[in-house]
Amino acid sequence: MRDLSGGAPALLSINGATVRKQADLLGIIDACARHGIGAISPWRDQVAAVGRERAQRAIKDAGLKLSGYCRGGLFPADAAHRSDMRDDNRRYVDEAAALGAPCLIVVAGGLPQYARPGSAPSKDIVGTRAMIEDGLAELLAYARTAKLPLALEPLHPMYCADRAAVNTLAQALDIAQRLDPQRTGAPGSALGVAVDVYHTWWDPDLYDGIARAGREKRILAYHVRPCRSTRC
Amino acid sequence: MRDLSGGAPALLSINGATVRKQADLLGIIDACARHGIGAISPWRDQVAAVGRERAQRAIKDAGLKLSGYCRGGLFPADAAHRSDMRDDNRRYVDEAAALGAPCLIVVAGGLPQYARPGSAPSKDIVGTRAMIEDGLAELLAYARTAKLPLALEPLHPMYCADRAAVNTLAQALDIAQRLDPQRTGAPGSALGVAVDVYHTWWDPDLYDGIARAGREKRILAYHVRPCRSTRC
Repeated sequence: MRDLSGGAPALLSINGATVRKQADLLGIIDACARHGIGAISPWRDQVAAVGRERAQRAIKDAGLKLSGYCRGGLFPADAAHRSDMRDDNRRYVDEAAALGAPCLIVVAGGLPQYARPGSAPSKDIVGTRAMIEDGLAELLAYARTAKLPLALEPLHPMYCADRAAVNTLAQALDIAQRLDPQRTGAPGSALGVAVDVYHTWWDPDLYDGIARAGREKRILAYHVRPCRSTRC
Repeated sequence: MRDLSGGAPALLSINGATVRKQADLLGIIDACARHGIGAISPWRDQVAAVGRERAQRAIKDAGLKLSGYCRGGLFPADAAHRSDMRDDNRRYVDEAAALGAPCLIVVAGGLPQYARPGSAPSKDIVGTRAMIEDGLAELLAYARTAKLPLALEPLHPMYCADRAAVNTLAQALDIAQRLDPQRTGAPGSALGVAVDVYHTWWDPDLYDGIARAGREKRILAYHVRPCRSTRC
């Protein structure tokens, strides 16, 4: 594994999806410990496969921290699928809180037929974004009761239709500002953002957005990716 | 061919690339005339293949207008390829002016090794964008002498690395504002934009951008695409 940490692997967290083909969660935890990696962000299915208590014990025994839990969201749904969507997301909050994760990563979802399969097909991107904001507002109210911050992750615009119609950091920060207005002196945001270089590198406003996110105390996760090229 | 014009095909222009596999330029001109399509935007190679004078005569005889000429740009280049890039773009301006096109469509180009093959590879997206703006400023000075407007076309961010690092309408309009500041009462912009639904549909700021582009008199071309689905 190439060292992306500048010699400080304890500052890194491994996202469970990155190594899901190599091992189950217990194997991933063991590998992180061996490589001196400091934290982990597991996915629901990975925790479920080994059981929450066993996962928690292994994380604790390995001296790892949790950096987040993956992933809630996928808000757009037609009327028939809306309560399933709501329940599913509340379970994500409950699971993340029970695990002791510091935040839940939230991916917005694309058009309803992709976000919640079975929903009536639509090409209404404006309406899709309204569903995202409504769903997120509702989940945020629930997450506040669990004191669990949500980290909204903008995805690259190539995923706009099928995975996430939140596609720029500025868009995510504007949503956060509307749903969780910044309060001076507050300890942190209930709704923050996850900044992923894979999804945001192309954005001409990226550096301004990162500076803004820092000022507004919104950055809950920062994702880097190992590059497949040997040249970088 | 499905009618995308709302019953007024004379308001449509066909981009030469859309039907390049079906016929040469003379065949495309003939088909446009038969279908009552009002204008055409040919590519350099299509004009060259039949000869400029023959192309011009055929366009005139068919009663077609030109809506643009495709396409200049691809500005990023290393030092060894910069003068070729400059000469190539000046030829585009000369050809568009000689043909009587109302504007030259300009695509920014991606990283130097893709924009101008043979250039030293780079991953510097900020530097690439500086090369785009420098190259565009220089071409604009040349195009002004030919009284030929340039239409900068933002491409979808999935093309950022290899085809165009101008990826949002706001980014294109900001560049236009810097290089060709809006003058109240001016008849039109020397540097405008081409808005293509295929490239811009995902943009959360698209409608604001179109309104701004209209206010600033920047819209030189508006591209729609036939949808492959039978449902839309």
